[in-house]
Formats: sequence, structure tokens, C-alpha cells
Amino acid sequence: MTLDFESWTCPVPLRDTPAIVLGHGGGGAMSAELVRHLFLPGYGSAGAPGELGDCAVLEIGGTRLAFSTDGFVVKPMFFPGGSIGDLAVNGTVNDLAMSGATPLHLSAAFILQEGTALAELGRIAEAMGAAARAAGVRLVTGDTKVVDNGSGDGVYVTTAGIGVVPEGVDIRPGRAAPGDAILISGDLGAHGVAVLSCREGLTFGTEVRSDTAPLHGLVAAMLATGADVHVLRDPTRGGVAAALNEIAKAAGVGVELTERDLPVPGEVADACNLLGLDPLQVANEGKLVAFVPEPHAEQVLEAMRAHAYGKGARKIGTCVPDHPGMVVARTALGGTRVISMPIGEQLPRIC
Amino acid sequence: MTLDFESWTCPVPLRDTPAIVLGHGGGGAMSAELVRHLFLPGYGSAGAPGELGDCAVLEIGGTRLAFSTDGFVVKPMFFPGGSIGDLAVNGTVNDLAMSGATPLHLSAAFILQEGTALAELGRIAEAMGAAARAAGVRLVTGDTKVVDNGSGDGVYVTTAGIGVVPEGVDIRPGRAAPGDAILISGDLGAHGVAVLSCREGLTFGTEVRSDTAPLHGLVAAMLATGADVHVLRDPTRGGVAAALNEIAKAAGVGVELTERDLPVPGEVADACNLLGLDPLQVANEGKLVAFVPEPHAEQVLEAMRAHAYGKGARKIGTCVPDHPGMVVARTALGGTRVISMPIGEQLPRIC
Repeated sequence: MTLDFESWTCPVPLRDTPAIVLGHGGGGAMSAELVRHLFLPGYGSAGAPGELGDCAVLEIGGTRLAFSTDGFVVKPMFFPGGSIGDLAVNGTVNDLAMSGATPLHLSAAFILQEGTALAELGRIAEAMGAAARAAGVRLVTGDTKVVDNGSGDGVYVTTAGIGVVPEGVDIRPGRAAPGDAILISGDLGAHGVAVLSCREGLTFGTEVRSDTAPLHGLVAAMLATGADVHVLRDPTRGGVAAALNEIAKAAGVGVELTERDLPVPGEVADACNLLGLDPLQVANEGKLVAFVPEPHAEQVLEAMRAHAYGKGARKIGTCVPDHPGMVVARTALGGTRVISMPIGEQLPRIC
Repeated sequence: MTLDFESWTCPVPLRDTPAIVLGHGGGGAMSAELVRHLFLPGYGSAGAPGELGDCAVLEIGGTRLAFSTDGFVVKPMFFPGGSIGDLAVNGTVNDLAMSGATPLHLSAAFILQEGTALAELGRIAEAMGAAARAAGVRLVTGDTKVVDNGSGDGVYVTTAGIGVVPEGVDIRPGRAAPGDAILISGDLGAHGVAVLSCREGLTFGTEVRSDTAPLHGLVAAMLATGADVHVLRDPTRGGVAAALNEIAKAAGVGVELTERDLPVPGEVADACNLLGLDPLQVANEGKLVAFVPEPHAEQVLEAMRAHAYGKGARKIGTCVPDHPGMVVARTALGGTRVISMPIGEQLPRIC
């Protein structure tokens, strides 16, 4: 089994490495360093104020628009439960949904390797069409570039999306507040393990399928309860560990999880044990984490459980005023352990 | 000199080739076939109605938004007159501007090859920041993926952009009409020859520099004359030949050029002669073609010539009712020749 671990490089801070390593694409601390110490200084005053988030909310002509982009380089391009085409649509739909927006329009730009079978590209286009119909969005513009054999790897797709944020909705990491209940919409780790399982023909007995799904309908159901949802986040690259650490840092709050409440299915736990992966760092493509005031938690959970993509919703922790910027988990034995921000990349090219 | 011509494959229609060839990324007939026979059928009802254009104009909340995306894979990443960073900003700014929109916000998604020097990426980010400031747009959201060495080639950047189309402006290929004067904003072919000149150290005596530039200011100046501009197009991949053929086909009109009026600088002509390229098919990154009713042509040309990016503006032809869908040029000897749609790719990875 070769998992690109041979080419994996020990993660080091940006200032000490002269070149890009796989960890810079992992969605963890190294990715954040690249944004903070390279892209933002490079962009200067043309950059967004503050951080470059997954999704920008912009006021244009009196309407609040959400605008987001994501590149997809997953290997292999087809895996149990989905393909790069599903991810490319659902990933951008979900980035928009995490600001509370209703996604409307997507663009798709392809970078194709010379020699890629047209039949594979056709299957990807069909998957994108089906995912877009399921999500109720249109693919309205696009671009295609071809690179010579050896300068690409099959199909890379970058989607961007536009959505509309409803009146009165203000959902962003900075709004996490002590007293918030922290909810998860379902089981963790399926996407990462599904992709891993079909790299080099690895199997774990039970087939684990990617959870890729569009989440804006679930978000709409949560908002329809009238609850003041503070933060939403889809725990993709870097998993729940990266998502919660980013939120804790952005809001200057602490996060306290109850370890036994974290829903990690047995087959995902087994695969992670076997491979030495932390399931909290494994990517999900159809789950969300929500911060809502404790008094609203029960009604939001009920609304989530009534939705197809939230059946396994549960509370996993609480937002606290202690240890700001830090995520800790209460273990079954009554102790605590720190859930740290992933540094580099556990699983390269997972999305 | 190796120009990737070794890996160039004879262009054949989509239905007869089982795999992607470089020509599918050339912006000519093969690119159009891929959209028409693969992407649109794959997307099905989730695709845009009609063709997938360079730029979609969408009505959201009473505002007409322009939305566009482009991927950039130019090789080398730095060339006389610019870099992949300038192209990535100006290319999307110009796609928006060609619908008459004022560009506002861009996203940038990077696909980085492991081992790329951070210093190079930093120079590209700085170039993007400078180009965005010059164009008056903000880089508001982004994404970074890293692929293993051998699955990429330095830096690929995909930008998407949003702009606002002013009230009353309706600029699109389908509006070309017999009687329109066809204008060009300046000299042709500089970008393609500039990139070519620095591949493998080729020189042509005089240095040719890329013309990469943001064109929305020039467009605004043209619209300020009050003229009813019918069509705007930036002749990038596939050059003026591809742009005019697409317009002729979209509107069902004929295009008649006067060959001696086509502004091809001596050094571009020399380079094209040497390499067997047709200057009408060479990419430009800071020029536009405009179709305006003949009675408005002179005032539009005056406004163009008063703008920094339109100093060399001139009329190059006329839109005619004859030979619909076809572009012909009147030669100096009084004959005519057909300017056909480029099929594949003269110069791979030019943008």
C-alpha cells in the first residue's frame, strides 16, 4: 500500500520551509499559516479585511450575497458513495450553506490532464449535474484547460458559488459564545475512510461509503425553528478537530467535548485504529457542526433529526469561557485531553 | 526547442477521440465540442439554458449580476510583461467586463504542486494583489489544495468573479447585427508571442511583452458615449479568429474584415512567420473586440483612443448579412479568404 506517505514531509512552520509540502493543503495549521503569512500579505489592501474565510458575505444592491470557492483534487476520482463531481458541487453548496445562504448558482472550471478518458469526464459531468439538481442549483458558467501528461492527474475541478443570505441571519465563527451547545448532524469520518479504502484496494470488511451531501436544506430546517444559530461549519479537511479549533480561536472561546458522545461508527474507528488516524481529524463531506444557545438546542436537534441528513444529530459538547482558543475532550475516565489543531495532512488529496 | 508539439495530437471531433487531447483546452472548435457534447448533456437540466458562456448574467434581488470563472495554467508562470497572477485577476475581470459589468469581487483557488518554492508563490500572490488594486476589485475568498510532485506543475490558479451590470446595458454575442462596425482596441498577438518567447529561451530580437490588462475601465468609457454597444469580446485563447467566429455563429451574421487594417506589430508578425503561427489565432490578454452600430463607431473609437488601454483602437471590419456564421477577410489584392475557427491549440498552456 502506497499512500503518498513516502512523499510526506514533516510539517514545519511556513517561515522555516522553502517550498510547498502536502501539509499546506491539509486545512490545518499549515494551511492557515499559508493564508496568514503569504496570501494576505501578498494581496495587501486588495485582500479581504481580516481573514480569508471559506465563504465571503457581500452586500450588493441591498442583497446579502454569499460567495465561495473550492478546488477538488481527490484521488481516486470515484470512490464508494460518490465522485469528484459530487464533491465539487456539494462542497461549494455547503460552504455557502454554512453562512446560512440559499445556494443558487455555481461555476465549474476544469483542469484536465491530456489522455484522460472522455468517458470518465462524462461520468463526472453527469455526477455534477445530478448533484446540482439534488441541491437545486444551476451550473451557469465554466472553463476548461488541458495540461500535458505529467502536469496533472485526471480531472481537477474548481467550483465557485453564489447564494443569498436571508434577512436577519448572521452565522459566522466569531459568534460562538460561552453557553452555546455544540451539535453534530451525524456520524463522523465516513468520507475520509471511504476514499482511503479504495486507494490501492484496501478493504475493511464492511464497506464505508462517503457521506457527501448538500446541507442547505438541513440548515434551512434548523433556521425555521427560529433559533439564533451562532455558528455552522462543515468539518471537511482536518475534520471536527480543525473546525472546532478554528471556531474557538475566531471567537476567543473554549470548547469542551464529551468524548463518549462523539459518534464514530465502529468500522470508521476500526479503520482509524489500523492506520493510526485520529477520527476527529478525518474529513466529512455531508456533516455539519452547529453552535446554538443551550435553551434552543433541543428544538434545533429535533428539527435536525426530522431531516434526511440530520437523523443522527446529537449534542457533543459545550462552549465555555475557560481556556479560550482551545478544544478539550472529557474522557470516559473523567479526565480531559486537548484536541489540537491538525498541523499538516493525515490523508493527502481527500477532497 | 521543445514546445510540447511532440505531445500534440491531431484534432479530431469529440465523438472520434476516446481521450482528452491538448486541443480540447484551446478555446477553439474542440473546446466548444466538449461543452456541447459532454458538459451540457452531462449537466442536463442543471446546466445553463443554451450555451455555457464565459460569463453568466443573473438577476438576483433586482440586481443584474455577472458571474464568471477561468482557470490559469500558463507555462512558464512568469513571462515578459506579467505572470500567472496578473492573468488570473485580469482574465476574470475582463470576462465580467465583456458583459458590461463593473467587476467587484474575486475568489482565488490554488492547486499547488508539492515542492513549489514559497518565494514563487509569494511573487504570484503579490502580482494578484497589485492587479486587483489596479482593477479596483477585492480578493474575498479562496482555497488551497496541494498535489504530490508529478501530479501538478507549479501553481494553477482558478479565479471566479462577481460584478454588477448597469441598468439598460445588454452586451452579448447574439446582439451582433448587420451594419455593425467591428472595432479592436489595439495591436494583436503580444501575449502569445511573449509567453512563447520565454519558453526554452527563444528570442526574436525585440522583446515582446504580454499585453495583460484590466479592460473594464475602457468598457466604461465606451459606454459613457451613450452608444448602443452590441457585443464585446476579449480575444484570448484562439485569438481574434475564435472570438469573431463565435460571435458570427451566435448571432447568425457574417463578419467581413479588411486584412490590411488588422494591427499586427512587426515583431509579432516576424515571430509568427518563423513559427508558422497565424497571428489572428494568437492569444491577447488586454484587448477587446467590439461590435457597435456604424453611426456610433467614430465616437466610440474616440473614447477608446482617449483611454490608456485603447490608444491603438481602430475599425477592422463590418458585420454583414451575407455568409452567416462565417468570417472572411478582404486581402490587399482585392480577393477574400475565410478566417476559420481554430480547431485545436496552436500554443498549449498560453493562459
